[in-house]
Order: sequence, then structure tokens, then C-alpha cells
Amino acid sequence: MGTKAQGTYAKGIERRRELLRIAAEVFAAEGFEGTTLKLVAERAGIKEATLFHYFSGKQDLLTAVLADRDEQNSAQHGGSVTSLADFPGIAEHNERHPGLTALFAVASATATRPDHAAHDYFRTRYSWLLGTVERDIAGAQARGEIRTDIAPEDAARLIVGVFDGIQLQWLYDPATSMPAALSSVLRLLAPQG
Amino acid sequence: MGTKAQGTYAKGIERRRELLRIAAEVFAAEGFEGTTLKLVAERAGIKEATLFHYFSGKQDLLTAVLADRDEQNSAQHGGSVTSLADFPGIAEHNERHPGLTALFAVASATATRPDHAAHDYFRTRYSWLLGTVERDIAGAQARGEIRTDIAPEDAARLIVGVFDGIQLQWLYDPATSMPAALSSVLRLLAPQG
Repeated sequence: MGTKAQGTYAKGIERRRELLRIAAEVFAAEGFEGTTLKLVAERAGIKEATLFHYFSGKQDLLTAVLADRDEQNSAQHGGSVTSLADFPGIAEHNERHPGLTALFAVASATATRPDHAAHDYFRTRYSWLLGTVERDIAGAQARGEIRTDIAPEDAARLIVGVFDGIQLQWLYDPATSMPAALSSVLRLLAPQG
Repeated sequence: MGTKAQGTYAKGIERRRELLRIAAEVFAAEGFEGTTLKLVAERAGIKEATLFHYFSGKQDLLTAVLADRDEQNSAQHGGSVTSLADFPGIAEHNERHPGLTALFAVASATATRPDHAAHDYFRTRYSWLLGTVERDIAGAQARGEIRTDIAPEDAARLIVGVFDGIQLQWLYDPATSMPAALSSVLRLLAPQG
């Protein structure tokens, strides 16, 4: 690419990121059903047709917003979202972003239908997340930091399960502490005295 | 009530239950979005207008189906859904009813929006469920069956959290064992050797 093409490319990336930020705000405030591409385009000050240069439709836009949230979480934690000790911190971060957290909870549940556009995204994400946490657990067990009477795979399922399940409790009752629940499950997994 | 009125009343109850059974099947197969009152009425062999004698709309019908599922679960376990040892069995039951389980997972997430018709149903249900499990935990701790270095409230949040979270993992990957996850968390809560 020449310098001019590179500049155009970089500008496109930057523009896309800005659109994702705006879309995340709209999804968070209006929910998936209440969000329209028209509304996102209006907030971004562009025509709806222009939005289609970047995203093929509303479900594609949602998937892009969710993937971008993963990337940002990952960047915040030095490229790894899933060091075990980071979980309470991620939960704390999510408590400060209730709209996106609710969006994620609703999207991950509705996308369990195989015909949902975000189905493959979530299936792949769970498989990757569970595999990563499982490896972290196995390492922590080898270092004597996690009790060894539970299989790494089962422990990973519990941690990720508590993360998703406590989110729901928190959405119904904001007095719920998500970081405390994550800390509790990690404490139960500590080697027995 | 005279005998005739009683007969009519009993018939109405029976008819309502039958409609809930049919609606549950339609919701399970079509999802909330795909379900229409017209379709439910067709399957029941009645007019859509007749359905409105029993339910005020689709969200009311959904709430009634969910409440009926709770009642049936409760009846199966001698009137109490939440004896701790019952959780793996309830998860096993849910694995045999994937459609209703998916419906429940999606409905509990989408109803986190305060304007959703099932919001109050789920908020009340979580509050009741967490309170009941918390009391069960406290009793089990007093009997020396659950470790005492975790508050009953926190343990209740973990069990209910794992129940909801593992459901999602199972919906994306049917190789997931929900009963095994519930057994794992109960094992972690056992008194330390």
C-alpha cells in the first residue's frame, strides 16, 4: 500500500472503532430489540447506507460490539483475560458498565438458538474461554495453588458458570456483589487446610 | 358454588393447564420471538380470541408457562425444589427437557430489562430461591454437612449461579454435564477433611 492508501485504511479502522463505541452505547441503552441501524447511524452522524459499508446488519453489528468488548478486556489485562486472579477484577469492571453487561447476558442467552447470528461467536468464545481457564487451573494445581481433588475442566466450568450466573443475579438485584462471588469460588478452590 | 358451577370451574382449571402444556411446547420449539398466540390457539384447536379468556397476551402466557414449570418441579420434589441434594437431579431433569430449559435461560436473561412483563416474576423468583437455599445452607452448616468458612448467603449465590451458568455452557455444548457441575460445587462446599 502507498502512504495515501495506508492513511485511508487507518482512517477506516478508526472510524469502525468509533462506530462500535456508539453502537455499544445504543445497544446498552435500547437493548437488542430496541436498537435500529437507523438510530446508530443517526447518533454517528452518518447515513444508514454508510453503516452497511462496515456491517452487514444488526446482528453482525452486535457480534462486532461483543468481540470488541472482549478485545478491550483482554488488552486491559495484559493480553490475557483469564488469569484466575483477574476474574474478580473483570467482574468489578462489568459492574461499572451495566448496559454492556446486560447486553452481553441477554445476547449470550438468546444466541443459544443455532439460527442466531451470534451463535458461532459465542460457541467459539465459550470453547476458547473454558479451554484457557482449564489450562490456568492445571498450572495453578501444579504450583499447589488450587486443590487437586477437582478436574481442571470441572473447575473451569464452575468459574465460568459462576461468572455468568452471578451476572443474572446482579441484574435483578444490584446489591449483589459480582467480585465477591468470584472471590468466593476461588477461595473454595484453594488447597484444603 | 353449586355442583354445576364447581364443574365449570374445575373444567376451566383443567383447560388452562392443557393450554399451558401446549404453549410450553410451542415456546420450546419456536422460541419467544417465533411464538404467536395464533399458533398456540391453532395447536389447541381453539380461536385466538378464546385464548384471551385465559391470558392477557404473549408475555403473560410465557410467565404462566414458567410459573407452571416451577410448580411441577416443586411437586416432583415433595413440595420443596431446593433441598441442596436435589439440585443435580433437577439439572438432570432439565437436560431431558432442552426446549423448556432454553426457553427459561433466554427468558431469565431478557427479563432483566425492568420493562419486560416477566421482570417481576423473575426478580421475585430469584429472591425467593436465594433465600430458601440460604436457609438450607445454614441448616446444613449447623448439622456439620457444609463447611462453615463461607456465609450461607454467599454459598447460595454460588449454587444458584452455577445452576444458571452451566445451563448456558450446556446449551452451547451438549457434552456439558449439568448434574456433574452441580455435584462439583456441592463437593467443594463439603466440610474440609
